[in-house]
Amino acid sequence: MLVAFAFATALTAQTNSKYILVIHGGAGTILKSQMTPEKEALYKQGLQNALDAGSKILKQGGTALDAVEATIMVLENDSLFNAGKGAVFTNEGKNELDASIMDGKTLKAGAVAGVTNIKNPITAARAVMDKSEHVMMAGKGAELFAAQNGCTVVDPSYFFTTQRWNDLLDAKREDSLKALHKDSTKAFLKQPDNHDYKYGTVGAVALDMYGNLAAATSTGGMTDKRYGRIGDSPIIGAGTYADNNTCAVSCTGWGEYFIRLSMAKTVSDRMEFAHESVKDAADEMIMKKLPSLGGDGGLIAVDKDGNFTMSFDTDGMYRGYIKSDGESKVEIYK
Amino acid sequence: MLVAFAFATALTAQTNSKYILVIHGGAGTILKSQMTPEKEALYKQGLQNALDAGSKILKQGGTALDAVEATIMVLENDSLFNAGKGAVFTNEGKNELDASIMDGKTLKAGAVAGVTNIKNPITAARAVMDKSEHVMMAGKGAELFAAQNGCTVVDPSYFFTTQRWNDLLDAKREDSLKALHKDSTKAFLKQPDNHDYKYGTVGAVALDMYGNLAAATSTGGMTDKRYGRIGDSPIIGAGTYADNNTCAVSCTGWGEYFIRLSMAKTVSDRMEFAHESVKDAADEMIMKKLPSLGGDGGLIAVDKDGNFTMSFDTDGMYRGYIKSDGESKVEIYK
Repeated sequence: MLVAFAFATALTAQTNSKYILVIHGGAGTILKSQMTPEKEALYKQGLQNALDAGSKILKQGGTALDAVEATIMVLENDSLFNAGKGAVFTNEGKNELDASIMDGKTLKAGAVAGVTNIKNPITAARAVMDKSEHVMMAGKGAELFAAQNGCTVVDPSYFFTTQRWNDLLDAKREDSLKALHKDSTKAFLKQPDNHDYKYGTVGAVALDMYGNLAAATSTGGMTDKRYGRIGDSPIIGAGTYADNNTCAVSCTGWGEYFIRLSMAKTVSDRMEFAHESVKDAADEMIMKKLPSLGGDGGLIAVDKDGNFTMSFDTDGMYRGYIKSDGESKVEIYK
Repeated sequence: MLVAFAFATALTAQTNSKYILVIHGGAGTILKSQMTPEKEALYKQGLQNALDAGSKILKQGGTALDAVEATIMVLENDSLFNAGKGAVFTNEGKNELDASIMDGKTLKAGAVAGVTNIKNPITAARAVMDKSEHVMMAGKGAELFAAQNGCTVVDPSYFFTTQRWNDLLDAKREDSLKALHKDSTKAFLKQPDNHDYKYGTVGAVALDMYGNLAAATSTGGMTDKRYGRIGDSPIIGAGTYADNNTCAVSCTGWGEYFIRLSMAKTVSDRMEFAHESVKDAADEMIMKKLPSLGGDGGLIAVDKDGNFTMSFDTDGMYRGYIKSDGESKVEIYK
C-alpha cells in the first residue's frame, strides 16, 4: 500500500498532464485587405493541421521535442509557408533551406544551413542533435550527414513552386530597375523596400506533460538571397532556444537583427536574470529593442509553467496554439 | 575663450585616453612539461606581435573595431595559431575558415563560415558587416562577396603547413584504429579522446578611448572535421559578442557547448540583467555552466570600464593584454 502510494506520488510529480503547443508561420505585412477568404481559410487550415499533428503527440504523452519536430514537418510540407516545400528561391534559382531544434531538458541542439535536397530540414537538424556531437552543419556536408542518418532525400526540383518562382522573377526585375537608378552593389539588399522578402519562417515551441520545453524553426530564407547568406533560423540563441529553467522560443523576422540581438537567448536570459515574465521579456525585445535597431518581426515563446506569448510588431503573424484543456486558436492579423 | 573651454570639455567627455586590448590564441591541454623554451618563446612573440599591432591603433586614437581586426590579422598570419595560415585540415584535406566580428557601439556584426581562399577571414567578416546588410555568409557565396569587396584572395594551398597536415594524418590513423574496435559511425567524433582537436581559435576584445567595445574571433575549426561542421567562432552570441553597455567577449573551446550556452551573449546578459562583474559573469559560465554540460575552454572579455578577464578551465590558454598605462603581459599556462 505504501509502495503503491509512493509510486502514485512519483508519477504525479513527473507529469501533470498539462501541455501546450504554440506555432508561427511567419510575420510580415499580412493585411486582411489583401487576403481573399479562400486564401485565409487555407492558411488557417495549414496552421490547424500543424497544431493537430503536434498536439496528438503531446496528448499521447510524447515529448515536446518530438511534438515540435512533427509540427514543423507539417508546415514544411505545406507549400503555403516558406520552409521545405514552398521555400523561396535564391538569386541563383535554388532553394537553400535552414532549420534548427533545441531540447530544453538537456540543452542539446541541432541545426543545418543551406541544404538543398533534404525533404524536411527539421529532421536533419534533429539528426545533427541526436546522432552527432556537433550542433551545426552546413551545405553539402550537412546533406551527406542527413542522408547517412535516415533523412528523406529528394531531388531539388521537389521544392519548386510556381508562386515562389514568380516571386524570384519579380525580385530580379526589381533589382534590374534599381541597378539602373542606384548604386548597383546595393541592389541585392532590397530589404528597405520590400520587407516581406524576409519573413518566411515557421516555428513551434512546446511544453510537454513532463515539464520539458523544446523549440524548432525552419525556413527557406530570403527570396533572391545571395552570397550564402545565413539568417537567424539555424542559429541557436538567435532564431531558436529552449531551456527547461526558463522558456522555449522560435523567432521570425528580419534575421540579421535577430542575430545581432541573440533574440531567443536574450528572452530566456531576461527571464532567468531579470525575473521577467515570458510575455514581458518577449514584448521588451520585439516591441522595443528590435525596432530601436531598425528591425521587425515576431516570436513565439512558452515558459515552464505553460504561460505563452506570440509577440510581433508587424501587421500580422500566422500563428496558433493549443492547450491540454482543449483551448485552441489560429490567428493571422494584429 | 568660452568656446575654447566648451570644446575642450566636449573632447574630455568623448575620450579619456584609456584603452585596453586583450587577446587569446586558443585554450587546451597546454602543459609546460610538453613545451620547449624555444617553442614557448615563439608563442609569446606571436602574441606580443598581435598586441603591438592592435595597441598601436588604439594608442593613435583608432577604434576598438579597427584594433581587433588588425590584431586578428597578425594572429591569422602566424602559422602557430589555428586561424588563417596555420589552420587545421578537414577530413577532406581542406582548410575551411570561420571568423566573426562585432561592434559594441552599433551592435553591427559580420561573420563568414567555411571560406577556403580568403587570406584573412576576419577581413571578410568585417566586409560582411560594413558592406552588406547581412550578418553571416557561408561557403562559396561568402568567398565571392569577400573577393568582390576587396579581401585578399589566395590559392587554398597558401594555408598548407606541414604540422597541420601531419595532425590530420594522425587523426585519420586514429580514426582507422577506432573504426576497427568501435562503432565506426562515431569514429569522426573523436572529442572525448582528443580534446585538443577543438581548441584552436584566436580572439581579440578591445575598449578604445571613446568608450567603444569590439570583439573578433577567427579559427580553422577542428582537425579532421566533416559534414560542414560549424563551431561557435562565426556565431554571433556564441563565440563573439560586443555591446557598449556591457562587454566584449571572444571565446575558445569546445564550440558545440559554447553554442548551446550562447556563451558570449550570456556573459553580456549576466552583466546587464544580474549586474554581475565581467569577471564573475565569465567565471560562472566557464568554471561552472560549461563543465556542468561536459564542455571546456575559455574566453576573454573586457567591460565598458576597462575591467577584463581571461577565464579558462583548461590547462592553459595562450593569452595576453595591454593597457593604455603601459601594463602588458603574455601568458600561456594556468
